[in-house]
Amino acid sequence: MIYMDNAATFWPKPPSVIQAMTDYMTNIGANSGRSGHRLAIEAGRIVYETREAVAELFNISDPLRVVFCSNATEALNLAMRGFLQAGDGVITSSIEHNSVMRPLRALEKEGIEVTVVNCSSQGFLDPHDVQAAIKSNTKLIVLNHASNVVGSILPVAEVGKIARENDLVLLVDAAQTVGAYPIDAEAMNIDLLAFTGHKAMYGPQGTGGLYVREGIDLKPLKWGGTGSRSEEEYQPDFLPDKYESGTMNIVGLAGLGAGVRFVLSEDIDKIRENEKNLTRKLLNGLLNIEDITVYGGLDVDRQVGLVSFNIEGVSPSEVGFQLDEEYEIMCRVGLHCAPAAHKTIGTFPIGTVRLSLSHFTTEEEIGETIRAVVEIALNKG
Amino acid sequence: MIYMDNAATFWPKPPSVIQAMTDYMTNIGANSGRSGHRLAIEAGRIVYETREAVAELFNISDPLRVVFCSNATEALNLAMRGFLQAGDGVITSSIEHNSVMRPLRALEKEGIEVTVVNCSSQGFLDPHDVQAAIKSNTKLIVLNHASNVVGSILPVAEVGKIARENDLVLLVDAAQTVGAYPIDAEAMNIDLLAFTGHKAMYGPQGTGGLYVREGIDLKPLKWGGTGSRSEEEYQPDFLPDKYESGTMNIVGLAGLGAGVRFVLSEDIDKIRENEKNLTRKLLNGLLNIEDITVYGGLDVDRQVGLVSFNIEGVSPSEVGFQLDEEYEIMCRVGLHCAPAAHKTIGTFPIGTVRLSLSHFTTEEEIGETIRAVVEIALNKG
Repeated sequence: MIYMDNAATFWPKPPSVIQAMTDYMTNIGANSGRSGHRLAIEAGRIVYETREAVAELFNISDPLRVVFCSNATEALNLAMRGFLQAGDGVITSSIEHNSVMRPLRALEKEGIEVTVVNCSSQGFLDPHDVQAAIKSNTKLIVLNHASNVVGSILPVAEVGKIARENDLVLLVDAAQTVGAYPIDAEAMNIDLLAFTGHKAMYGPQGTGGLYVREGIDLKPLKWGGTGSRSEEEYQPDFLPDKYESGTMNIVGLAGLGAGVRFVLSEDIDKIRENEKNLTRKLLNGLLNIEDITVYGGLDVDRQVGLVSFNIEGVSPSEVGFQLDEEYEIMCRVGLHCAPAAHKTIGTFPIGTVRLSLSHFTTEEEIGETIRAVVEIALNKG
Repeated sequence: MIYMDNAATFWPKPPSVIQAMTDYMTNIGANSGRSGHRLAIEAGRIVYETREAVAELFNISDPLRVVFCSNATEALNLAMRGFLQAGDGVITSSIEHNSVMRPLRALEKEGIEVTVVNCSSQGFLDPHDVQAAIKSNTKLIVLNHASNVVGSILPVAEVGKIARENDLVLLVDAAQTVGAYPIDAEAMNIDLLAFTGHKAMYGPQGTGGLYVREGIDLKPLKWGGTGSRSEEEYQPDFLPDKYESGTMNIVGLAGLGAGVRFVLSEDIDKIRENEKNLTRKLLNGLLNIEDITVYGGLDVDRQVGLVSFNIEGVSPSEVGFQLDEEYEIMCRVGLHCAPAAHKTIGTFPIGTVRLSLSHFTTEEEIGETIRAVVEIALNKG
């Protein structure tokens, strides 16, 4: 079996991730930040060490500004709903995931003005277009760091500079980059950074979070017990407790910590180099096939490890079905929860076939995948 | 080591729970409800089977009305914030956890009228007092099923009848009962049932959810990708997708499914009987110690498996410290995230020592715990 659906969720995970989760479940089990006994303290240590590892990955100085959420979607909702108020304007791109567009369309009904800046049909964004879209009520810019449909990398640092110059806040959806592409939140002027734990951070599902730069105040998404200020019926006003109500996913965070430590020890530049090489091989192989359209910039320097394509005359779902049934290759087909992105690249409403890889993908797997697509393209009709 | 902190989180878990999580992480890994390949379908099956098991435990007919959340706190926020609108009134009790009180105090600032009905100093609620508190703007009643401070069971079915007669919606926080005490959501007229996965359902942390009775519409807490209606930038309006945005905690739900199946196979009446016997032994032992105050009704038929007490002249934190350091007994001390409950039973702001058990607690462990408390009480000062 060849797993080429890593942009949905990375698999396999490093053995250390599963080991950390099993160790926690078997030997610790307790809740963090509540009770004071030795197991609870051990649980609290696991959560804090994961926070430290994430802070190191983002190159931010204060681990307590890393807020854990159940996924990137929750982090994006916390950031957008927590920051924007009726009358505010927000700028986003035409290549966003529904984790950005659906919260924004809901906010639009509550009096937020949403401006969508068009990307090119290759999935790239011109920072000047963002600059030109700024209005007097603009407060926030929301961008994904890389498209989940074509893998194009957006000019986050350049937009960060524009945001800083215009006193705007920049929120980045880094679901497709964190762990696979170097991020320096401070140098890139990222004010709010939403991340998912189960993709290139190699953690389990149920993890993710939001980095909140000092000085930015958000309204919570949820209120409740935090283990802190237990004498108060009002939410604590300090981070991360203000945004982390209820028992945390400690077993998930144990796994996420191990995943991030895997990334840090492998070295993120080495990971990026490897994924570029694999992506180049995949792109080159697909581009040699007749009757195939490959979307995006076709340039590994401006792309993460995912490739979208279509075979003329064969629907994406038929290609996906054959890849699974006849070649045991797992991919994703359709709209990938990002209708606006497909309108941008011209593949709405049929979608694309998406192949996405991880640090564990081998050159042999890429080769076998290309051969399978060649056969499907040859045998069509 | 003796773990008597189960009201915070149950531990140990049945081996089948850890096995289900490891199996998923090792052999499946994929995302549910998105891609169409075999691993994704297997992941979807795991999520659905967990939904079915939870529905069976609650005795509700439609598993799709079980919405998964990251914890009971999120479920309570979804229920309260999703249902109440400015001008509405809500009734709650004086013995609630901060997972209820903090969201309500925040809603109060947004124009919701909050009425708190007093419980007795033993932690019991008179349904007539709820009836008397109903006003013309009352829309919702929120009650915990059992107190996390004294274990008292609240008359949820009786209040459910009152709610039905008055066209009000009843939301129950079942964090301390689901899995340990029989619940029939339909027969008890529970409209919204918030549950946590990591306590008596024996699942891992990061799981929980909300049962939403048919006919009740809530505003989502989060918007985003659902894998359904991917062509739309607006949230799907059907359950559970409307409230389940973003990648789910599938590894957690694999564990939760195994946990609930453990409860169903052990038989919940047998579990309840066992915990009553253990609680009786614990209560009787503590009540025999001089200079000790045990809180609550002291009646196992009206109490779940947790007991709060104080030793005269020794602070709860000192008792907890000695239990941990000298006897390797894990408990929780302080306010247990429920200041209102401590005001009700007269232990604010110092709190109590709380001992809480599970189906795995043995009579020997109860005996050793009682002997330890006797020694601490004898040696004080």
